[in-house]
Amino acid sequence: MADTNVKTDELLALERRYCSFGDTVHYLEPPKVFVNCEGSYLYDEQGIPYLDLQMWYSAASFGYKNARLNEALKRQLERLPQLACQYLHAEKIEVAARIAQYCEKRFGVKGRVHFNVGGSQAIEDSLKVVRNYTGKNLAFAFMGGYHGRTLGASAITSSYRYRRRYGHFGDRAQFVPFPYCFRCFYGMKRATCNLYCADQFAKLFESEYHGVWDAREEGAEFGAFYIEAVQGTGGYAVPPQEYFARLKATCDRRKILLVDDEIQMGVYRTGKFWAIENFGITPDIIVFGKALTNGLNPLSGIWAREELIAPEVLPPGSTHSTFSSNTLGTAVALETLKMLEEEDYEKRVQEKGAYFLAGLRELQQRHPGVIGDVDGLGLALRIEICKEDGITPDRDLAGRIFAEGLKGSLEVGERKYGLVLDVGGYYKNVFTLAPAFTITREEMDLALELLDQLLGRCRN
Amino acid sequence: MADTNVKTDELLALERRYCSFGDTVHYLEPPKVFVNCEGSYLYDEQGIPYLDLQMWYSAASFGYKNARLNEALKRQLERLPQLACQYLHAEKIEVAARIAQYCEKRFGVKGRVHFNVGGSQAIEDSLKVVRNYTGKNLAFAFMGGYHGRTLGASAITSSYRYRRRYGHFGDRAQFVPFPYCFRCFYGMKRATCNLYCADQFAKLFESEYHGVWDAREEGAEFGAFYIEAVQGTGGYAVPPQEYFARLKATCDRRKILLVDDEIQMGVYRTGKFWAIENFGITPDIIVFGKALTNGLNPLSGIWAREELIAPEVLPPGSTHSTFSSNTLGTAVALETLKMLEEEDYEKRVQEKGAYFLAGLRELQQRHPGVIGDVDGLGLALRIEICKEDGITPDRDLAGRIFAEGLKGSLEVGERKYGLVLDVGGYYKNVFTLAPAFTITREEMDLALELLDQLLGRCRN
Amino acid sequence: MADTNVKTDELLALERRYCSFGDTVHYLEPPKVFVNCEGSYLYDEQGIPYLDLQMWYSAASFGYKNARLNEALKRQLERLPQLACQYLHAEKIEVAARIAQYCEKRFGVKGRVHFNVGGSQAIEDSLKVVRNYTGKNLAFAFMGGYHGRTLGASAITSSYRYRRRYGHFGDRAQFVPFPYCFRCFYGMKRATCNLYCADQFAKLFESEYHGVWDAREEGAEFGAFYIEAVQGTGGYAVPPQEYFARLKATCDRRKILLVDDEIQMGVYRTGKFWAIENFGITPDIIVFGKALTNGLNPLSGIWAREELIAPEVLPPGSTHSTFSSNTLGTAVALETLKMLEEEDYEKRVQEKGAYFLAGLRELQQRHPGVIGDVDGLGLALRIEICKEDGITPDRDLAGRIFAEGLKGSLEVGERKYGLVLDVGGYYKNVFTLAPAFTITREEMDLALELLDQLLGRCRN
Amino acid sequence: MADTNVKTDELLALERRYCSFGDTVHYLEPPKVFVNCEGSYLYDEQGIPYLDLQMWYSAASFGYKNARLNEALKRQLERLPQLACQYLHAEKIEVAARIAQYCEKRFGVKGRVHFNVGGSQAIEDSLKVVRNYTGKNLAFAFMGGYHGRTLGASAITSSYRYRRRYGHFGDRAQFVPFPYCFRCFYGMKRATCNLYCADQFAKLFESEYHGVWDAREEGAEFGAFYIEAVQGTGGYAVPPQEYFARLKATCDRRKILLVDDEIQMGVYRTGKFWAIENFGITPDIIVFGKALTNGLNPLSGIWAREELIAPEVLPPGSTHSTFSSNTLGTAVALETLKMLEEEDYEKRVQEKGAYFLAGLRELQQRHPGVIGDVDGLGLALRIEICKEDGITPDRDLAGRIFAEGLKGSLEVGERKYGLVLDVGGYYKNVFTLAPAFTITREEMDLALELLDQLLGRCRN
Repeated sequence: MADTNVKTDELLALERRYCSFGDTVHYLEPPKVFVNCEGSYLYDEQGIPYLDLQMWYSAASFGYKNARLNEALKRQLERLPQLACQYLHAEKIEVAARIAQYCEKRFGVKGRVHFNVGGSQAIEDSLKVVRNYTGKNLAFAFMGGYHGRTLGASAITSSYRYRRRYGHFGDRAQFVPFPYCFRCFYGMKRATCNLYCADQFAKLFESEYHGVWDAREEGAEFGAFYIEAVQGTGGYAVPPQEYFARLKATCDRRKILLVDDEIQMGVYRTGKFWAIENFGITPDIIVFGKALTNGLNPLSGIWAREELIAPEVLPPGSTHSTFSSNTLGTAVALETLKMLEEEDYEKRVQEKGAYFLAGLRELQQRHPGVIGDVDGLGLALRIEICKEDGITPDRDLAGRIFAEGLKGSLEVGERKYGLVLDVGGYYKNVFTLAPAFTITREEMDLALELLDQLLGRCRN
Repeated sequence: MADTNVKTDELLALERRYCSFGDTVHYLEPPKVFVNCEGSYLYDEQGIPYLDLQMWYSAASFGYKNARLNEALKRQLERLPQLACQYLHAEKIEVAARIAQYCEKRFGVKGRVHFNVGGSQAIEDSLKVVRNYTGKNLAFAFMGGYHGRTLGASAITSSYRYRRRYGHFGDRAQFVPFPYCFRCFYGMKRATCNLYCADQFAKLFESEYHGVWDAREEGAEFGAFYIEAVQGTGGYAVPPQEYFARLKATCDRRKILLVDDEIQMGVYRTGKFWAIENFGITPDIIVFGKALTNGLNPLSGIWAREELIAPEVLPPGSTHSTFSSNTLGTAVALETLKMLEEEDYEKRVQEKGAYFLAGLRELQQRHPGVIGDVDGLGLALRIEICKEDGITPDRDLAGRIFAEGLKGSLEVGERKYGLVLDVGGYYKNVFTLAPAFTITREEMDLALELLDQLLGRCRN
Repeated sequence: MADTNVKTDELLALERRYCSFGDTVHYLEPPKVFVNCEGSYLYDEQGIPYLDLQMWYSAASFGYKNARLNEALKRQLERLPQLACQYLHAEKIEVAARIAQYCEKRFGVKGRVHFNVGGSQAIEDSLKVVRNYTGKNLAFAFMGGYHGRTLGASAITSSYRYRRRYGHFGDRAQFVPFPYCFRCFYGMKRATCNLYCADQFAKLFESEYHGVWDAREEGAEFGAFYIEAVQGTGGYAVPPQEYFARLKATCDRRKILLVDDEIQMGVYRTGKFWAIENFGITPDIIVFGKALTNGLNPLSGIWAREELIAPEVLPPGSTHSTFSSNTLGTAVALETLKMLEEEDYEKRVQEKGAYFLAGLRELQQRHPGVIGDVDGLGLALRIEICKEDGITPDRDLAGRIFAEGLKGSLEVGERKYGLVLDVGGYYKNVFTLAPAFTITREEMDLALELLDQLLGRCRN
Repeated sequence: MADTNVKTDELLALERRYCSFGDTVHYLEPPKVFVNCEGSYLYDEQGIPYLDLQMWYSAASFGYKNARLNEALKRQLERLPQLACQYLHAEKIEVAARIAQYCEKRFGVKGRVHFNVGGSQAIEDSLKVVRNYTGKNLAFAFMGGYHGRTLGASAITSSYRYRRRYGHFGDRAQFVPFPYCFRCFYGMKRATCNLYCADQFAKLFESEYHGVWDAREEGAEFGAFYIEAVQGTGGYAVPPQEYFARLKATCDRRKILLVDDEIQMGVYRTGKFWAIENFGITPDIIVFGKALTNGLNPLSGIWAREELIAPEVLPPGSTHSTFSSNTLGTAVALETLKMLEEEDYEKRVQEKGAYFLAGLRELQQRHPGVIGDVDGLGLALRIEICKEDGITPDRDLAGRIFAEGLKGSLEVGERKYGLVLDVGGYYKNVFTLAPAFTITREEMDLALELLDQLLGRCRN
C-alpha cells in the first residue's frame, strides 16, 4: 500500500488522532480504507474488488483510471502544469469555447464560461452573477436540493442540518417542494395532480401579501431559483416531464433567473450532456464540475447567458480564485470534451441505463415493499428502501445494506466482492446509483446479484 | 502549441467571445498567453523565457515542473487517482498527521487537520469552526487583508471593491489597521509608536460604548480575528516583531479566536513553515493551501486546536466537499512534506531572501524616491513604487513596469527576456515578489538587472 | 376649525409642500381633512357627519371622545402627566397586573407585562424576547399578516411591497398560507379539506430536507410563529375554529414560540378580550396596543409567559423606550380595563356583531356576486368586493366605493352623510369594518343603507 | 395616591410579580414610586419634593405640568382627540410646515417633515429614507452613540450590551470614535490634535483596502453617518467647534448622508433649536421627538432634504404607523412651536446654562479629582465622577450619589429634598443634567447645594 509503509491499523490510529471528523468520513466506523482502483472497482488492502455503483458521487463517471484522461493529465504535467490564472493557456479557452458553443447549439443562446475550483465555488460565482445582475440577495431553491457547503451554498441548500451549527444565515433561500412524486409534499397523485406543485409556486406571485412580489413595481424579492434537474443528494428523483417548463414560465414572468446546478448530473449522467436537456428548457446559468475531469481535478465553472456575464456586466476582477482555470484541470476537461464528441454518449448512457433500470425493476419484484421505488434517468438510478408497506422509509435497513456492502464479504462464483453504495434522499433511505459509463452488462448483472444478496442478508 | 492546433490569434478571438472576463484575466489587454514553464521561467509561444518573480502568487514555490513533485503526482495517477472522500487513503492521513505533529512540536498544542479544495473553501471551513465554537457570525480582519472571494471570504476581505457588486453582506468584518508601518494608518512613526495600533485595538474593549464588548457578560460581539502574518494581496508588508504577541494577548483576554491565514505565506515563503512562527505566537486556527502541492492540485485545509475541532465539537457531516482530500493532491502534499523534512528550507529560504533583499536595497539606492520602500521576510519581498517624493504611490508607473516586463523585449547578454511581476498593495503600487525557492543567485542577479532595465524604460 | 385660523385650501397647499407623502395619507387625492369627531362620527369642515365603520383601524373602539376615557386622561394631566419610565407610578403597575391576572385566569399560565409605545415597538420587544429565549433570528409568519413597519416588523410582515425599497432583510420571515378559506391558497374547499393547510405546515418538519428542522438535534431554524388570530390588514378573514389548535400543537412539538399579535383584534374587537380566546389556545406571547387607550395614547405592550420574561431571563436594561409606560397612556388604559370589568363587553360586542353581520348578509343578497363574501367575528366584519362572478377581486370598485363614501354626498332622510370605510385584504378589495362598540342599531341600519347607496352609485 | 387606592408596598409587590423588569426600571432596588410633579419637581407619596435635573431624559424640558401645553392637550381632547392618520387635520400640517420653514430659514434647504411615534420609530423611518435613497443597508455611527432600542436602532447604537441577547445583527453599524476630548479614544490632547479623529475618519476612504470605499466606482459601502451633535446617553460630551464641519465634508465627498439625531438634544436643550446649529453644518436628515410635546405625547418625526423625501422618491405607503401624526401630539407640538416663537429661548437657555455651568465649575473646585470634568452646552450639562486622580471613572461613587439622591433625605433649610439625577456616559460615571428650561436661579442654587451634600455624604 502506497509508499508510505504504514499499516492500516496504524493509519486508522493516526486518523483518529490527527484528522478532523468534520468532513463526511466516519459515517462508517471505522472508515473504510481503499488502496487501488480500476474501471468500476475499488480495491482494499486485501485486493478484494468492490463494485462501485456511485463512482465518487458521479465525479468519476468515465471509470477509475480512465487511460485516455489519465494520459491527458500526464501530457499537461510535461508541458504546462502550472500557470497563474491571470495568464492564458490554450486549453482553458478551448474548453470554454466548446461548452459555450454546445450551449449555443442546444439552447440557441449565446453565453460565456467562467471557471473556478470545486462545485461550491462555482455556485458562489453563480450567486455573484445573480446578485450583480438582479441586485437581490435572496433565492428560491428546492426542498431536497443540495448546492454545496460554503456558507453561501449552505444558505440555498435545503437541509437545516447543514446550517444549524453556523449561526444566522441572512441570505437563506425559500425552499419550494420539488416534484418528488413518490412522496409528494402536497399529498397529490401524479396521475391527477396536473402539476399542482408548479401552480402553487406560481400562486406565490398572485398577491403581494403572499410575501414575494410587488405588483406595483412588478418586482420579486428573489433574484433566482436554484434547481437540480434531477436531485443528487436529494435522492435522484426524476421530475415529471413538463414540470420545468411550467416553473421556467413562472420565473420568466416574475423576472427570476433560473440557475441549473449540473455539478452532479451534468456531463451525461442522465443521458444528456446537461440533465436539463431532458426537460426542454433553457436555464439562465448552468453550474458544472465533478465529472468534467473524471475526478482528476476539481475544475468547475459556470455558463451564463451573455447579458448576465458580458465583460461590461461582470468586468475583470469581479471574481478570482488561484486555481480557477488551472492547466491540469482544463487539459483533462478538454480531453473529456473531445472524447464526448467522438462517441455517442447519449446513446451509450441511455442504453446502459435502460438495461440497469430493467434489472432493478426485477429486483423490486423480488423484494416487494422493501424496495418501495425504483426509477432513473440515464445512469442516474434510485432504489428507495422502505418498510414492508412499501412507503415508510427504512433508514436503518438502508444503513445496514450500505455497511454490509463495504465488508467485502459477498461471494459470487469463487470470488469475494464488496459493493459500494451511496445513501441519499430526504430520509436517508435511498441508494443513489451512479455507475461508471464504462460499466459492462456483466458488471450490471453482478451488481444486481450483489444487491440481491445484500437485501437477503440484511432483511431480518 | 499544445495539441489544440489553434494559433494564438484565434485563441484570443475565442477567448474574447466565449470566456468570462470576470476573473482576473484582462488586467493586461490582450492577456498574455504562455505555453511552457520550467524552474523559474514561463515561456511564450516564441520560446522567450520570462523570469517569474511571483510564482503563481506563491502557489508554485518549489519551481515550475519540480521533478520530484511531478513524479509524485504521476505515481498516484497510477495507483489511486480517484476516491470519494468518505473513504480513507493513506496519504490523506499521513499529510494530516505530519502537519498536526509539526504544529504540536512548534506550538506545544494538540490539534487536527481538515481538508478542502481551494483557499477560499478552507477559509469557509474556518468560518464554520469559529461560528460553531463561538456562536458568533462576526469577525475582525485587517485593512489590506485578503482571504478569498467566496461570499463568506469576501465578507472578511478588506477591499469593498470585492463586495460592491454583490448586495448586502450581513457578516461583514470590522477592519482594523494592519501594522503597515511604511504607511501607518495612524500616521505614527515606528521608532516612537510603541505599537500604538495594538493599543488602539485593545481600547475597543474598554467600554461597552466602543461597540464590541459587553463587560457585564464578559463577551465580545466578534468571534475571531482573521490575520495574515505578512499580508499577501495587501503588499507583503512585514509587521513589527512584537505586534502579534500584543494582538493575541488582547484576543485571548477578550475570548476572540485568532485565525491565521497562511494560504499565501505558509510553507516557507517567509523562511518558516508557517509565517506566524516569525512572530512567536500560537494561532487558534491555521488555514493553508497553495504551495503545499506546488500548484499541482488545489488541496487546502485548516489546522485547529483540539477543543475547536475534536469530533464531539465538529462531528462527521459538519462540512463536506467532493474533492476535499483528493488522492492526487494529498499524494503531492505528502511528497512536499517529505522533501521539506529532508532539507533545511528555513536556511535555504532565509539565505536566498537575504541575498535578494540586499540586491533590492541596492536597486533602491539607484532609484531613490521611485522605490519608496523595499522590505521582505524570507522570500516574500516587496518593492513599493512611488513618486519622486518617495511616498506618494505611483500606481501608473507600477502598471507600466508590469506591462513592459510582459512584452518579453528586455535583453541581457544576447538573449531576450520577459519579467513576470505581480502588482499588489493598498494602492496597487507594490511589486510583491515570491520567487521560486529554487531560484539561483544568477537568476536573482538577472532579476535585479531586468528590474533595473524596466525602471529605466518606464520612468519618464 | 382649530385655533390655527388656516383654511382648508391653504392647509392642503402647505401639506403638499411641507409634509412627507411617505405615510399612508394621499391614498385619496386630495386627502380628506376632518375637524371634529364624536361617537361613531367624524365631521368635516362643513359639519357633515361621516359614519365611521373603521374607527381608526380599531384604535378608537370605544367611540370618539368617549367621555369616561377622556376624563381619565384629563385627571392624569392634573396629577402626574410626566414621569421617566425608570420610576414607577401606580397606573402602570395596575394595568400590568390586571392584564397578567386576566391571562392567568383565562389561560392558566403565569406571565408578565412589558410596555412600549406604538404597536411596532411592542412587536420589536416581542422579537427581542423570542431571540433572547430561543437564540434564533428567524420566524414564521402568515401570508396576509401585518405586524408593523419598523424594519424588524417589516421583516415578518408578508407584503414584499413594504420591504422593497429598503434593501436586504436578513431576518425575513418564511410566510405560511393563512386559513383564508374564501380564497384558499391550496385551492381546497373547507367542507372537505380537513385543515390541509395545518398539515402542510406540520409536514415542513418531517424531513431535514424540507429546510427547517434538524432531526438529530430536534431543533428548528425558526424561533417563533407570528400570528393574528383574525388578520387585520389581511382582510378580517376568520379562520376555521380548529385551526390554531393544530398549529399550536405543531409549534409546541417543534419548539417554536407562538406570538399572538392582538394589536388590532385585541380588547374585544372579536367579542373576546383577546381574539385568540375564540380559538381555544394559549399563546406564548401576546402583543397589544391600539384600543387599550381608545387611541388617546400609543401605549402598547406585550404579555409573555413567565419563563420567557422572568427578571433572570430578561433582566433590567434589556429594552427601553422613553415613553414606554407613560403616565397618560397607562391612566387611560387602566380606566379602559375598569370599564371592561364593569360591563359585559363580550355580550355587547357579540350581539352587535351578530346584528350587523345579519344586515350585511342581506346586503349581499341584494348585491350577489359583487359582494363575494361577508363574514365576521364580533365587531370585526368583512365585505369582499368582487366581479359579477363572485370571486374575482374587484379592487377598482372597492376603491370607487371608498372614495365616494368620503365625498360626504350621500343622503338619508334630509341629511347629508359620508361613510368612512377602510380597504384591506390581499387584493385590496375587502372592506374591513371595525365599528365602535358604542354603535347603535340605528347607526348600523344607517351604515347598511349608506353601503347600499354606495354600491348602487359605484357599480356601473 | 391616584384613584387606585393601592398602597405603595402592595404596588411594589404587584410590580415584582406582574411587571417585566426588562425595561430600565429596577436600576434602583426597589424602584422609586412618584405620585405627583410640578415645574422642576417630582413628589413621592410623602410629598417630599425631588428636584429633577434630568427631566425625563429631556422629554419634559418645559417643566412638569406646563400649564400652556397641558391646556393645548385638553383643548384637542375636546375637539378632535382621535383621527386615523390617513386623514388630515390642521395641526399636523401646521407643525410640519413650521419645522420645515424653520429648517429652510436656518439651513437654506427645502425639505419635508414626516411623523411617527417614539424616537426609535422615527429613527427607523430615517433608516428607510437612507436605504431607499442610497440602496445601502450599512451606516456609520459614533462610539457612545445611542439611537434607540428597536432592532434597527440597536444596530446603529454603539453599546454591544444592547445587542448581545438578540442574535446576529446583519446591519450593524461601524462605530467611529466620537470627539469626546476628555477621554480621547486616540489618546490625543485637544490643544494639539488638530482634530486627528476627523482625519482618521477621512483616511478610511483613501484606499479600497481600508474596507469602505471603491475608488473605481466612487462609491462607499455605507449609506449614512448617524450622529448626535451632543451625545445623550453617551454622557453629554460637547465636541470641538470645528469637528462636524470636517466630518460633513468627508461625508459629502464620499456620498454619505449625515443623519442628525436630535431626539434628546433638539428643541433648545443646547441653546439652539437644533443642537447641530451650534456647529454650523446642515444635516441631510434630522430626527426629533421627546421635548416637542413636553412629554405629553410620544410624537416624533424626521425632517429630510427634499430630494430624499419628495413624494416621487418616498411615495404614499412607504411607511405607516397608526399613531404617527396623532391629533393630541400634534396639537401639543404646535403649541410648543408657538411658544418658542414668542420668547427668545436661545437666550433663556444659554443664560441659564451659563449660570449653572459656572456653579458646577465651582463645585468642581470644591471636589477636585472626584469631579473630573464639568462641561455643557446650553442646559445640557455634565459632571464626570472620577477617582482622586481626576481621570479614572468612578462608577460606584456615581451610583451611590444617584441612589442617595433618591432617598429624599437631603435637607436644606428646614425642608427635606431629593435630587433626581441620571447616570450616563461610556463608563456610567457621568451625571447628565437636563434641567427644565423653567428652572430658576434659586433652583439651580439649590441643585448645587444638594449636589454638594451628596458628594459629601457619598465620598468615603
